[in-house]
Amino acid sequence: MIKRTVFFISDGTGITAGALGKLLEHFPATNFTQIRLPFTDTLDKIKLAQGSILRAEEEDSVRPVVIMSVGNVELRAAIKHSNAYFIDLFNTFIDPLGLELAQAPLTGAGIAHSVMGTKYNDRMEAINFTLNHDDGMTNSGLEEAQVILVGVSRCGKTPTSVYLAMQFGIKAANYPLIPEDFERGTLPAVLHKHLDKIFGLTIKPERLHAVRNERRSGSFYASLDNCKKEIITAENLMRNAGITWADSTSRSVEELSAIIMEKTRKPT
Amino acid sequence: MIKRTVFFISDGTGITAGALGKLLEHFPATNFTQIRLPFTDTLDKIKLAQGSILRAEEEDSVRPVVIMSVGNVELRAAIKHSNAYFIDLFNTFIDPLGLELAQAPLTGAGIAHSVMGTKYNDRMEAINFTLNHDDGMTNSGLEEAQVILVGVSRCGKTPTSVYLAMQFGIKAANYPLIPEDFERGTLPAVLHKHLDKIFGLTIKPERLHAVRNERRSGSFYASLDNCKKEIITAENLMRNAGITWADSTSRSVEELSAIIMEKTRKPT
Repeated sequence: MIKRTVFFISDGTGITAGALGKLLEHFPATNFTQIRLPFTDTLDKIKLAQGSILRAEEEDSVRPVVIMSVGNVELRAAIKHSNAYFIDLFNTFIDPLGLELAQAPLTGAGIAHSVMGTKYNDRMEAINFTLNHDDGMTNSGLEEAQVILVGVSRCGKTPTSVYLAMQFGIKAANYPLIPEDFERGTLPAVLHKHLDKIFGLTIKPERLHAVRNERRSGSFYASLDNCKKEIITAENLMRNAGITWADSTSRSVEELSAIIMEKTRKPT
Repeated sequence: MIKRTVFFISDGTGITAGALGKLLEHFPATNFTQIRLPFTDTLDKIKLAQGSILRAEEEDSVRPVVIMSVGNVELRAAIKHSNAYFIDLFNTFIDPLGLELAQAPLTGAGIAHSVMGTKYNDRMEAINFTLNHDDGMTNSGLEEAQVILVGVSRCGKTPTSVYLAMQFGIKAANYPLIPEDFERGTLPAVLHKHLDKIFGLTIKPERLHAVRNERRSGSFYASLDNCKKEIITAENLMRNAGITWADSTSRSVEELSAIIMEKTRKPT
């Protein structure tokens, strides 16, 4: 497999530049080493970065890729004295967008992820809400929830809720469907008045069996038979209640969250 | 203030395209309306998107910005029949990077955020670990933690821990510093052997007072005097223990996490 080193160089957190690292998944035949260099905001730090770029080139026998977001024009030019393939967010995006908007961009460090950023407080409040309403922990304040996820234990409700809160500022509660719900055959009573914001998750029995076995190996709870039975019952229950659901088996929390946002039509 | 609508059009989750939305913070004089259109993977959906683009243009009296990540070449071309300023991640990034790598990119939908993505399982495991080790909930398994955050109650430990886990797959525990620690004047005993992975957070008294007052208005706990005293004592305690800390008052969780990654030198 071909090796390549990719540097994310930023005068701020490097998070926007780093997000583009996801695009490397489009090139599965290359084995990427990803190195983040945040807060690279002085000539000294840029010299250190250049040393790392040179060493990576020697090691891989091919020039590295540098994805960079640096506002200061002199620092930007200095980095480019290195031998690398540069993707410069200012050259490529921000400056041309400034022309379109007829507005000069701010070039200070760390603009994108400051606490002044759009909706920051909403996101922090959503995280607190979501952690306080994980796993049916409390029924109080459910009217504040924007989404309530339901599904059998260990089907992915918690990480999906946390992602919805962190990424989109959505107050996402989650509620497990448990044996007493299956016996009764209906959703927990407290959820009945919130049907419009409930979204279901399901999972393939084999996968659930594997996940539960990691924690409680050999238990009835983790047995394939019990997993099958719980899932069939939970899906019937959701169908009868008219709840839309998605299968988490081969979907990431990013994909599940995007589906949930789409289906529940929350403004972002 | 000038109004502009920005569309994020993707055949997948739209998360990578959406991350570039952070760059809009560089243009504070424009009032952006951001609209995400994930899973836009058929001609029908593109026609719907084009209707929305047209309505936005009419409403704003200026053409919208479209940030797009669509693998299929025909769909890509179809979108561009609209009147908009296009930032096309394939044209701008992926295709040129493919030339540099001498490798054709995968063009299927939703490549970047599939469960096959790099380190996905590590991230999910880190989230579970972090939620189970929030707020000093348990001492068991602390040897598995990669970072342990300490600080006074409500200084930002929880959202920062969750962000470290979600974004970087870091197992981040957090431990509150509480009155009995202050009386004793040392860190909780259980933390002594983990000094190398402890990072401190602090906060300005006025800000802590405001945050605590939201939940427990008028309490001794929330009083400015108590906040001042706790913070001075906590900082002394961290100083004596040789713990590096950062002030969360005017920093986002993204900034704090980048600082923590930098100072504790975790590989990403």
